Amino acid sequence: MKLTPPYALFLGDASDSLGLKMANSIATWRPSQCVGEIALPECSVTTGLPLLSIKDAAEQGAKSFVLGFNNAGGHIDIKYLPHIKLAIEHGMHIINGLHDKLSDIPELVALAQQYQVDLIDIRHPTTRFKTANGQKRTGKRLLTVGTDCSVGKMYTTLALHEAMQAKGMHATFRATGQCGILVAGEGVAVDCVVSDFISGAVEALTPDNAADHWDVIEGQGSLFHPAFAGVTLGLIHGAQADALVICHTLRREFMRGMPGYRLPTVQQAVELNLLHARLTNPNCKVIGISLNTSAVDEQTARETCLQISQETGLPCQDPIRHGVDRLMSQLL
Amino acid sequence: MKLTPPYALFLGDASDSLGLKMANSIATWRPSQCVGEIALPECSVTTGLPLLSIKDAAEQGAKSFVLGFNNAGGHIDIKYLPHIKLAIEHGMHIINGLHDKLSDIPELVALAQQYQVDLIDIRHPTTRFKTANGQKRTGKRLLTVGTDCSVGKMYTTLALHEAMQAKGMHATFRATGQCGILVAGEGVAVDCVVSDFISGAVEALTPDNAADHWDVIEGQGSLFHPAFAGVTLGLIHGAQADALVICHTLRREFMRGMPGYRLPTVQQAVELNLLHARLTNPNCKVIGISLNTSAVDEQTARETCLQISQETGLPCQDPIRHGVDRLMSQLL
Repeated sequence: MKLTPPYALFLGDASDSLGLKMANSIATWRPSQCVGEIALPECSVTTGLPLLSIKDAAEQGAKSFVLGFNNAGGHIDIKYLPHIKLAIEHGMHIINGLHDKLSDIPELVALAQQYQVDLIDIRHPTTRFKTANGQKRTGKRLLTVGTDCSVGKMYTTLALHEAMQAKGMHATFRATGQCGILVAGEGVAVDCVVSDFISGAVEALTPDNAADHWDVIEGQGSLFHPAFAGVTLGLIHGAQADALVICHTLRREFMRGMPGYRLPTVQQAVELNLLHARLTNPNCKVIGISLNTSAVDEQTARETCLQISQETGLPCQDPIRHGVDRLMSQLL
Repeated sequence: MKLTPPYALFLGDASDSLGLKMANSIATWRPSQCVGEIALPECSVTTGLPLLSIKDAAEQGAKSFVLGFNNAGGHIDIKYLPHIKLAIEHGMHIINGLHDKLSDIPELVALAQQYQVDLIDIRHPTTRFKTANGQKRTGKRLLTVGTDCSVGKMYTTLALHEAMQAKGMHATFRATGQCGILVAGEGVAVDCVVSDFISGAVEALTPDNAADHWDVIEGQGSLFHPAFAGVTLGLIHGAQADALVICHTLRREFMRGMPGYRLPTVQQAVELNLLHARLTNPNCKVIGISLNTSAVDEQTARETCLQISQETGLPCQDPIRHGVDRLMSQLL
């Protein structure tokens, strides 16, 4: 699955920034691939990119129209169809990261065929995967893992990938979720793979490579999350990571969407992730902690990083606030 | 998905008993639901049931024709189609546990429609599942887990279910794989569920129940298997088991299909399964070890059970050879 920039980001009627994860991911990490955003009058949030009409976006060269919002249930509401159709009529491919498929809507399929554009449901794998074989692959791999979902794994992975490239290292960002796939232009949404093939899909996503090449793999879920830990474990085993980065966020008492389930400590996450990762790569190491400190002030952020670093014996920093130099120093 | 006995078991051209897992499961555990077996001339194995023609089977009341063999890749070979068609023409539903779907073969779909019978691809869920919610459910649950795949989890689960029923306990066998589904007449093949929904599917399979009712849940894979551990972990979290039984087999050096990956010790399996199971049920206990001793003589079997029992402090027995009374005593 290959995506074609530049992108026009459709925000729909989104009313909070959490609902704009797709649009914000690409606007933050690949702004040069975005011509602007398109929003319904009810939309109350922005990516910060220029507001355009669909006609404007097409004239400015947009090749793909991205459904940049998400909603509970991952539903494509009928109210969005006129806008999707208009984008098709302007020659744009449509990129969808929701659970619902564009390819299940016959009128869109017919129109896309007429205008010779693609309907791309990026969560839904188009490949038939094999079960994992567990055999050691060449090249190096880094995987982010988390104490919970939505703690900053994708941002951390992208920041590390960017830092590696800045240092002239050979590195590829490997996307495992819909936002990462949009940023990378390719990848596999592992949570949509049939469970027999989770590890096999990750093996296929991160194949043999040059000895000095790093696959920098986006993590998913958490070994401690009651709904998604299976996805995480399959991803860990398939990745055969040489290096793990533990991602954590401050001021969150319970696992995402799971009242009553407390987050593990960072140290618990270090130990359990390492235990499982060493099944398929006995030399795996945790190289550091990525801490999302957005909920606290600068002084608390620095003090907490220091404290976690002392508790775990590992570098700890917030990639957004303080960069990734200490994590990177463990790789060089 | 509901299945209709009695069954005619189609063995195809199977040449070893491992390839007859589907047929042997139902012939062993529900012999009264089977009218007999149907085999091609090249077939060199048997379930022990009478050999019949398709016409004979229909005359003896068979309502469903079971594809009782499996092969690498889970492929429905074109050579089987004439036999499947003949069964349809004799009014039988077709039950398929292979990866390939009957419903993808247009000529079978048309014929089944003409004869008003169902094509049932039991590995492929017909339900749309939700993600897990992790909320505690009423009733009790037992789950079998393993040091590896194919160590006797289904047999152990069925033996425990049978023993519970014999003691007048309220218990339901919950099938999670194709062979178990055939035996139970219903269930969910968790390895075919999209990975986001593994735990949610298991929550749906084992819903709220009476306080003294046991769901006896068939395990899948192993936390130590590099290809399938994700399935296992999702199943463990969704099951919220009160009781785990660890299944192990003797004389197997490497994980199934994974040269170089050694089996864990029973004690390692006790600890890691318990650690994960306690996330969704802090009161979970390992009640004992089910040991497949088929590779050794009677004296070695008894000595090894004793030794494992001493090492782990848990009852250990071979359900096929010695029954499940010691495991049961932990539940009463």
